[in-house]
Amino acid sequence: MTTPSFLTDFHRVAEIGATPNHGVDRQAATAEDRETREWFRTFAQTRGWEVRVDGIGNQFALVELVPGAPYVLLGSHLDSQPLGGRFDGAYGVIAGLHAADRIANSHAAGDAAAPRFNLAVVNWFNEEGGRFAPSIMGSSVFAGIMDEAEMLEVRDLRGVSVREALDQIGYLGSDARPEIAAYAEIHIEQGRILEREGIPIGAVDSSWYTQKLDIEVLGEQSHTGATLMSDRHDALLGAAKVIQRVHEVTDQFPPETLVSSVGQLTLEPNSPIVVARRVHLVADLRADDEAVVLAARDRLLADIRLIEAEHGLTIHARDFDVRANQHYPESGIRLSEEVAASLGLGARRIRTMAGHDSVAMNRIAPTVMLFIPSVDGVSHCEREFSRDEDMAAGVDFLTEVARRLLTGALQAE
Amino acid sequence: MTTPSFLTDFHRVAEIGATPNHGVDRQAATAEDRETREWFRTFAQTRGWEVRVDGIGNQFALVELVPGAPYVLLGSHLDSQPLGGRFDGAYGVIAGLHAADRIANSHAAGDAAAPRFNLAVVNWFNEEGGRFAPSIMGSSVFAGIMDEAEMLEVRDLRGVSVREALDQIGYLGSDARPEIAAYAEIHIEQGRILEREGIPIGAVDSSWYTQKLDIEVLGEQSHTGATLMSDRHDALLGAAKVIQRVHEVTDQFPPETLVSSVGQLTLEPNSPIVVARRVHLVADLRADDEAVVLAARDRLLADIRLIEAEHGLTIHARDFDVRANQHYPESGIRLSEEVAASLGLGARRIRTMAGHDSVAMNRIAPTVMLFIPSVDGVSHCEREFSRDEDMAAGVDFLTEVARRLLTGALQAE
Repeated sequence: MTTPSFLTDFHRVAEIGATPNHGVDRQAATAEDRETREWFRTFAQTRGWEVRVDGIGNQFALVELVPGAPYVLLGSHLDSQPLGGRFDGAYGVIAGLHAADRIANSHAAGDAAAPRFNLAVVNWFNEEGGRFAPSIMGSSVFAGIMDEAEMLEVRDLRGVSVREALDQIGYLGSDARPEIAAYAEIHIEQGRILEREGIPIGAVDSSWYTQKLDIEVLGEQSHTGATLMSDRHDALLGAAKVIQRVHEVTDQFPPETLVSSVGQLTLEPNSPIVVARRVHLVADLRADDEAVVLAARDRLLADIRLIEAEHGLTIHARDFDVRANQHYPESGIRLSEEVAASLGLGARRIRTMAGHDSVAMNRIAPTVMLFIPSVDGVSHCEREFSRDEDMAAGVDFLTEVARRLLTGALQAE
Repeated sequence: MTTPSFLTDFHRVAEIGATPNHGVDRQAATAEDRETREWFRTFAQTRGWEVRVDGIGNQFALVELVPGAPYVLLGSHLDSQPLGGRFDGAYGVIAGLHAADRIANSHAAGDAAAPRFNLAVVNWFNEEGGRFAPSIMGSSVFAGIMDEAEMLEVRDLRGVSVREALDQIGYLGSDARPEIAAYAEIHIEQGRILEREGIPIGAVDSSWYTQKLDIEVLGEQSHTGATLMSDRHDALLGAAKVIQRVHEVTDQFPPETLVSSVGQLTLEPNSPIVVARRVHLVADLRADDEAVVLAARDRLLADIRLIEAEHGLTIHARDFDVRANQHYPESGIRLSEEVAASLGLGARRIRTMAGHDSVAMNRIAPTVMLFIPSVDGVSHCEREFSRDEDMAAGVDFLTEVARRLLTGALQAE
């Protein structure tokens, strides 16, 4: 069969859930997410590959090379943030499928080294966590870090559960999960280092320490006009002060050592003429150094006690989605350096501030995490961009990494 | 027929849309609002009174005493805030119906002075403005201050229009509006003055100057983890600072001269891992003195320019729902004082910080606005409370005011 080029497929998938300013809106388990899954399924089935969907909606395409052997898994996620970018996640899944296609063709033609493993590509469920928190859900369940039954009961802001949403799009599966020998993922950097240094590939050596704070501010509902200022217990005012402290706490540390934001907030009753009784918000704290995150968290909790006292509010703050630093195996980084040398492509070691499915997979299998350059470093927005030539070079790189993983490059002898 | 007492009816209606902590949730044009309307209709039809619904969902019960004459209108609103109180509005409508019933019975028995006018009771649509802004919608359309066609297109946060919502509950009417000779409304104070002074009736002499600011904060969507702090343009952080300034601006004036709050806020995209691109919020500013509101507004607009510059945001602020001080006619206040003397009930002049349907009606007809005491002064919350004896005394008072209005007490000779 004639295979459309990687770039043709990439730009075709970018049309699914496309937004006016060149982004995509394909939140987990929506109709648009379903459409990308159908495209993934068709890609695999056209090539005679088996497709599986597990109990948390992870979708696998299996290329059998060595009957009964475990799998080298390539992939990322096809879901996006609301009005998100078309590269984040989708690039890694489509790159994985094309890498697998090239390798399958080499094996069919008999011009490849004898593999020790089978090959698979995955589209992980709900990496983004925009609709259903926490993020990195599908791969974390796969890795045994999150509980499947508990995650299926997570609800979005409209009260729809993961179970219901997956069932509605026909992707609440029950297939067996493949046994994994190694994992490789390629992703856009979402930062400016590779672009600034003109280096096409980043070999990720570790991930930042991250945690969220789930914060509930409880005040007393009253009339915005008829209530004396001194009688008000305004939950939204308290929340506004919390949001500002979450921002300002970064000033306590050297610049860019700590990043933090509040991205989600709901307000009750949300009426223009009513002082709010309850605000729920989520703060996100990240640093390379765990001690920095913990110091910032402690300072925020102390600030929250002051805000409570000043306005007669009750504020509950709960640690949530805590992720320790992950170090990717040195052997995988060296493998990437060897591939870079053999392909004549520059590569450098790099850290990730963002979370990825590979952070979960690294807990259970030898994992290689690769970056390609992001223009301007922006992501989770329509303006996110990576160049065609950088994407194409990344597919070549991932293909060569996968070939070496198939022959056991990361397995202890 | 045997008439259930006012208190029996009041407590019966409080069961419609009742909430666990003794409040009600009957937002405009919801199923619960429809249920109160059905109760109102049954009350009127059981007595043989004509019921009309106009093009903005105002509901009228007409008691014909003088065929062809204009109407003395009594009333308030049966809608509530989300998790609101059971007294705000409902008290005035049910008091109006019972006052009308007593007067109709007196006329039927022939023991009443010859009336110059007919009598009607109204349940105004959407006084609260919690679901559909602006508030005081039905009476303002009736008074010609707001445009009916424009108000029918106002949408709630889910995108449902007033027209659609009224149509869904079967209350998008087309009946002719009665011609009005005078208007009287009784309401809970929503403040502490009457309670503190032990006076059962307030005769409202004027309303505060009020305005809202419709504020849109535009930033740039980005990743809460991977974006440098210095690269962020966080719309929610800007909004948090605006909310705080709206609160703090009251400190620029003597205590309780100015009251202000932000009660409504929506956030896009509202994902825990995304720096917000847009926040929409509504600030409410009120003072007795117009100059105070205008000075506060100007200061806020200057603060907003600084917040824009500091965080690289664009913030649009628009004046909205501006309501000048309203002075109720002196003749109506004197009428209330005469009624107080004749019934042996104390009364005092009082101002209203909250808006009421009577503020709109006062523009087109001689209007009497009355208050009864509120316990603790709280309203727009489940804890809102007024005592049965105060409510009953208010019904007696309103009845006597209505009797005098029917004989032309407020008409120029």
